[in-house]
Amino acid sequence: MAAEDMAQVDIIIRERMQSPVGMIPDLAEHLVGAGGKRLRPLLTIASAHLCGYEGTHHYKLAAAVEFIHSATLLHDDVVDRSAKRRGRKAANLIWGNAPSILVGDFLFARAFNLMVETGSLEALGILSEASSIIAEGEVQQLAGLRDVEMSKATYMQVIGAKTAALFAAASEVAPVLAASGSQKQIALRTYGQELGLAFQLVDDALDYGGFEAALGKSVGDDFREGKMTLPVILAYDHAQQKGDKNALDFWRRVISEHNQSSGDLETATDLLKQENALEATLDAAREHIKTAKSALDIFPESPWKTALKRLADFVVQRVS
Amino acid sequence: MAAEDMAQVDIIIRERMQSPVGMIPDLAEHLVGAGGKRLRPLLTIASAHLCGYEGTHHYKLAAAVEFIHSATLLHDDVVDRSAKRRGRKAANLIWGNAPSILVGDFLFARAFNLMVETGSLEALGILSEASSIIAEGEVQQLAGLRDVEMSKATYMQVIGAKTAALFAAASEVAPVLAASGSQKQIALRTYGQELGLAFQLVDDALDYGGFEAALGKSVGDDFREGKMTLPVILAYDHAQQKGDKNALDFWRRVISEHNQSSGDLETATDLLKQENALEATLDAAREHIKTAKSALDIFPESPWKTALKRLADFVVQRVS
Repeated sequence: MAAEDMAQVDIIIRERMQSPVGMIPDLAEHLVGAGGKRLRPLLTIASAHLCGYEGTHHYKLAAAVEFIHSATLLHDDVVDRSAKRRGRKAANLIWGNAPSILVGDFLFARAFNLMVETGSLEALGILSEASSIIAEGEVQQLAGLRDVEMSKATYMQVIGAKTAALFAAASEVAPVLAASGSQKQIALRTYGQELGLAFQLVDDALDYGGFEAALGKSVGDDFREGKMTLPVILAYDHAQQKGDKNALDFWRRVISEHNQSSGDLETATDLLKQENALEATLDAAREHIKTAKSALDIFPESPWKTALKRLADFVVQRVS
Repeated sequence: MAAEDMAQVDIIIRERMQSPVGMIPDLAEHLVGAGGKRLRPLLTIASAHLCGYEGTHHYKLAAAVEFIHSATLLHDDVVDRSAKRRGRKAANLIWGNAPSILVGDFLFARAFNLMVETGSLEALGILSEASSIIAEGEVQQLAGLRDVEMSKATYMQVIGAKTAALFAAASEVAPVLAASGSQKQIALRTYGQELGLAFQLVDDALDYGGFEAALGKSVGDDFREGKMTLPVILAYDHAQQKGDKNALDFWRRVISEHNQSSGDLETATDLLKQENALEATLDAAREHIKTAKSALDIFPESPWKTALKRLADFVVQRVS
């Protein structure tokens, strides 16, 4: 249904990643050409239709959202020392860290160029606020690396910032363009925020495999980095409640001391399954999807409302 | 004269670099607390007064300009693997590359938050355009690293983008705030651009020392990275004209092959002096300062006009 609109967004993305400095479109093409779900710009497009928006600025805002996302991916891959992105070798491993950092900066600046062209200061405010929250979330995650004692509350704060903030902003800017009023703005913001939380929860469960995992998704990245995610937080919590010394020692060794050897990822996955930690994480995701969908209740039934609800279901269905 | 205004700018800078995520203000304080000349925000402040601006938005724009600059410094230090910044250990050597990248992103996003608050879409457009040009310039510089054949034209394009674009934008946003009209806008943009070119030329000469160099400035960074700057371009050019095989071999070895050993920096500096390449670079800077100052001719005499002219003189005087 949104295919034509997304084709428009794609045209803008490809136009605006151009530069006479050849390394920029080369590197950007490597990332953008690898596809990706374009979930975030789709939120802007579908939300704009839901609000009855009839202009063309939603294309530019959707492209801006994707540029902000691409910039964070490029920087994340340097920060996390990633090997793969979207099934391809990560850009930092081909061009080096420096071009990944700088092309990320370029795409981020281009995102703001696009927003300025829409003339909506309010949309600019929402997306620039989201951008600083994303960076805060990334730093908080970094500061919490290898902290086996991280609480669920801190984790939810991190994913709310690093992931959900952009989903929320991408959805919220649509009613702003359409001047739909604050009630619809809050509803779509909530929809996006909850959807983003669910998305990250599912992603964090997928990192331990065990499902018919989505294609191209590599397994064990979080574990190898010593990143605390909900499955591990739940399993560690259970081990503490039961006084399971073996499990506690294991998690402290692999996360806090970051002392890992072969077989540890498999042991971790076994422990998570034993404690139902992956299923519990997916249950949490399903709860957020429920909240996301019910935030749309204030909108009358329409094909776009149905589309946004299906999109929400899709986020959790990719693992079942 | 601008001391009170700059104190206001400092208050905004310190307020807006705060975050509940402690690593952000810690790292930002390390950079901001080290001082720095605050040349770019000063351009916004002085230009605003020159245009008779009587509001308060110039404080926020000046702080935004400094945040954009700080973000590029943090990223540059990762890209260049710098050891020192403003006489202190570079942030990436204390906190690591990842926090420097992410706090840079945070400051960049905060810059846009501040701009949005001024409500000036035109200023936003100018500063976001400058931001993408800066990133383009940085990538172009990276792509030209160790290219001993780099032309003066390419070099001027690189420094026009990576350095002068922000000086130009910092100056141009003031007449935009004051609604002074396009003639004054072009004049101040030209002033900033020319000043920025001169600033970078002087910086590139200072990298080879040989003057009563400004405090805290380390020597030889560009050489060690294999970065082509005007002094080397001029010396290499002279060597080609004279068919000086020894000099050509030297430059090709240390730049193109990036094969350097102890004593090479001294040899390079000697060659540059022999060819008057450092003096010629400073002469080029002086020419740009002349153009910068004459761009102000359309403004009636005033203490602020005098201040901007003195600021221009200061940029070249720090080496003589």
